[in-house]
Amino acid sequence: MQHEIEQLTIMLRRLPGLGPRSAKRVILHLLKKPDSLMTPLADLIAKTADRVVTCHICGNFDVQSPCEICQDSARDRSTICVVEEVDDLWALESTNSYNGLYHVLGGILSPLDGIGPEDLNIPGLLERLSKSHVNELIMALGATVDGQSTAHYITDHLDGTDINITRLSHGVPVGGELDYLDEGTLITALKSRRPVGEDTDKDRQKANL
Amino acid sequence: MQHEIEQLTIMLRRLPGLGPRSAKRVILHLLKKPDSLMTPLADLIAKTADRVVTCHICGNFDVQSPCEICQDSARDRSTICVVEEVDDLWALESTNSYNGLYHVLGGILSPLDGIGPEDLNIPGLLERLSKSHVNELIMALGATVDGQSTAHYITDHLDGTDINITRLSHGVPVGGELDYLDEGTLITALKSRRPVGEDTDKDRQKANL
Repeated sequence: MQHEIEQLTIMLRRLPGLGPRSAKRVILHLLKKPDSLMTPLADLIAKTADRVVTCHICGNFDVQSPCEICQDSARDRSTICVVEEVDDLWALESTNSYNGLYHVLGGILSPLDGIGPEDLNIPGLLERLSKSHVNELIMALGATVDGQSTAHYITDHLDGTDINITRLSHGVPVGGELDYLDEGTLITALKSRRPVGEDTDKDRQKANL
Repeated sequence: MQHEIEQLTIMLRRLPGLGPRSAKRVILHLLKKPDSLMTPLADLIAKTADRVVTCHICGNFDVQSPCEICQDSARDRSTICVVEEVDDLWALESTNSYNGLYHVLGGILSPLDGIGPEDLNIPGLLERLSKSHVNELIMALGATVDGQSTAHYITDHLDGTDINITRLSHGVPVGGELDYLDEGTLITALKSRRPVGEDTDKDRQKANL
């Protein structure tokens, strides 16, 4: 492996989730199809790099700003779901059960890593909320210490407004086995237990908003 | 995710070892750095696709044919190591303990998948051996049924020549725990047991050829 092939190995190896072995597998797969796979892939990456923009309203990646979601008049503009990264937005979108808007923070508060509110899209969120009429703000942040402190930080700054702040429920993952769960989740699931039967209609209505 | 971003997701998801989740992580990583990462990556892939060639002697990928290994006058031209794919060649090269040439078959015989000798670089190997003076042919093929049948097929076709045909040793991987090994490997390792002490100088000499 020399020249371009070696450089490409080094570059692909730095991508998240690709170790030395998997990077080599990808490269071998590519090298076998220079014309039918590599050239189209290079064109598509170059084209995407040219066209991708960050939505100036919500922080989503799209080829237009405002992004397709922010422009969609069929979506409920009174609900904003706060997520850490664009892939969380993608994950929620793929459920097809949320019809509101989003706000991508671009990370979570992490004092240990020196990430403060000004490093994230939090000032943008507060400004956005002050300018538009939002009924509900859903904190769809990770159930981690940093995720929850970020949610608290935002909640604190909205004290006195009439925005209804909610968070995703914590508990047993659907399809999850109890004996594989950590204690923290089990304790939370036990404390937040709900009457059998309540789950049905109310939840479905909420899920479809 | 629309347009180019969606197309790129679909394309990356088809690469080996990248599932839907890891493809999304890679894309998110790329989208965050359109100018500093995506454009250079696209350029490098395009440039590599333009320049990559398959060595007409050994089947290695390089930017020249004959490849760098085949052209290297410091290498032992009387030894050829037969491998299944180019990544096996890379793996052997990274050990820095082999100084001969290679021959990449581009796969192994697999009657169930309809892969016969003419689909692989086996005719090329036999022709190469008939034209050059080779002392040793090392079968560095997988210790699988298909790998061993491929080795047997080649060996059969070299019957009557004075080429010394060898194969990689089978046994306990170095650093491997016995209780994690499958029975087949253990039986092989036991049958191929060697006197303690024999391993040292002889093996080192062989490894450095």
